[in-house]
Amino acid sequence: MNAGPVVAAVDWGTTRLRVWLLAGDGAALAERRGDDGLITARETGFAKVLDRHLGALGAPAGLPVIMCGMVGSRQGWVEAPYVDVPARIDAILEGALRIGEESRDIRIVPGLAQKLADAPDVMRGEETQLAGAGLAGKGRHLVCMPGTHSKWVSVEDGAVAGFGTWPTGELFSVLAGHSILRHSLGEPPASVAADDPFFRRWCEAALAEGGDVSARLFSIRAAGLLHGLKPEQAAACLSGLLIGGEIASATRRHHGTGQSVTLIASGALGVLYSAALGLAGLRIRPVDADKAVRAGLFAAARQNGMFAEGASA
Amino acid sequence: MNAGPVVAAVDWGTTRLRVWLLAGDGAALAERRGDDGLITARETGFAKVLDRHLGALGAPAGLPVIMCGMVGSRQGWVEAPYVDVPARIDAILEGALRIGEESRDIRIVPGLAQKLADAPDVMRGEETQLAGAGLAGKGRHLVCMPGTHSKWVSVEDGAVAGFGTWPTGELFSVLAGHSILRHSLGEPPASVAADDPFFRRWCEAALAEGGDVSARLFSIRAAGLLHGLKPEQAAACLSGLLIGGEIASATRRHHGTGQSVTLIASGALGVLYSAALGLAGLRIRPVDADKAVRAGLFAAARQNGMFAEGASA
Repeated sequence: MNAGPVVAAVDWGTTRLRVWLLAGDGAALAERRGDDGLITARETGFAKVLDRHLGALGAPAGLPVIMCGMVGSRQGWVEAPYVDVPARIDAILEGALRIGEESRDIRIVPGLAQKLADAPDVMRGEETQLAGAGLAGKGRHLVCMPGTHSKWVSVEDGAVAGFGTWPTGELFSVLAGHSILRHSLGEPPASVAADDPFFRRWCEAALAEGGDVSARLFSIRAAGLLHGLKPEQAAACLSGLLIGGEIASATRRHHGTGQSVTLIASGALGVLYSAALGLAGLRIRPVDADKAVRAGLFAAARQNGMFAEGASA
Repeated sequence: MNAGPVVAAVDWGTTRLRVWLLAGDGAALAERRGDDGLITARETGFAKVLDRHLGALGAPAGLPVIMCGMVGSRQGWVEAPYVDVPARIDAILEGALRIGEESRDIRIVPGLAQKLADAPDVMRGEETQLAGAGLAGKGRHLVCMPGTHSKWVSVEDGAVAGFGTWPTGELFSVLAGHSILRHSLGEPPASVAADDPFFRRWCEAALAEGGDVSARLFSIRAAGLLHGLKPEQAAACLSGLLIGGEIASATRRHHGTGQSVTLIASGALGVLYSAALGLAGLRIRPVDADKAVRAGLFAAARQNGMFAEGASA
């Protein structure tokens, strides 16, 4: 069997892009990462950026491309309309939007919209991770996808019942960079270890307070003035406070206390959230975020008939 | 009786400064406001900035000066050590620190420090407003001083029992200026009216959720994408959310539910907080912040013997 790629998979976000060439069994044959997210691509041109990455990977001419993420937003290449929740996870992928390019079959997985009057929300990219995380079967799952804008998703019998967004990563960076806490944390703030006692103590305090974090933010500054809290300790406090607050708030809203949580994450952030979810007394089912998005994109390409089953280039 | 000034009173913060010439009965004879707060004064020189303002007001040579605010911080003119809480309000003022200037008697009211391990906090300037707000008598008072860093203070029988800081004004400005919400709010965001239905609805939602605001931040963005929320409406949502969250959190921590609240505020912010405290079902005792700080500074000058009682220049 020829192990050549049958499809290229692209996770294209606001600031970053990742491209994989996938074999007929979904295995990644090659990978590239770039900083040419939406912000860059809007200037350079989406087609040109994509062609450059595919060329660098040696992708065959005409190889189909399946994409997800902010590339399908109003500010992206082409706007892929949202699918409304509740929505079956496998049905989301079927609605991939074809871009009117002549040279190859390029499609974008739609995002999800929750049009509730009192809890409107949207996601783009995370729906594809969900689809690749093995959640299509029976049962209830609470899913945590940490990041700049962390998503928590209630999955029931293979359908997204509802979701919410906690902008924890963004709060950390705007507070560290632009608030009075920048004097406490240092610039740039040190990276935080999951076993740091300050991370753990502030996470536990936040977990006990149902998501109320604003009362403790200034305490980080005051602890520097009164107790000599050091910059790397202050960064650990802020990280523990915000992550603990997110978990307390999200599990309360999604009735997740005492449950297990599917944690779709990678790298250092996955380690921090594992520790924090453990402090919250939650059992964790870990799923690698990179593998999940690849699996979801592959499933989307297959469901949309973008390559012949069993074939390879 | 000659109505000339007996003392100059200065409220000197990080970004702004206000100077009054006060008569022997505490009345303001003249006022100046400037943008030369700490940040500017550290470059220009504190003495020079003060002399310029006193000169412009026509202050007599040698007129004593009583000051409060961040001018007494480590980054200020001279560091005035903190007074630890619990502390009697009238005793705070007695500890004004004299600056070693030859030309006139210049003193700085100390700030307050709360050295609790799990709730460290500091204030500089608000202690003087407290002292001028008529709270020295018997009884319990819960005091709200809204601002960039809102302070909530528990006063018991004329003493500060404890306090906390909610950086509500700063959260609004860093989120409006540096987070994804800048796309929703417009730059600069429109000012918010207390009777705006979006302000009221989001304030009520936040009041019902014990200070958990992070779960709703991204909803403002999503409501723009899904429901066509306009920039001025988005600004009202964020303001209502953050102020409602502050009140819910502060009244929970300071056991303030069902009480009356002494609101020390001025201008538009005072109107917004009055409305929000009303939505929380709290009775309000309003105190004008400008009058309170002047009265507190005058009391400090008198308690420190900076002018002869009944005298005037």
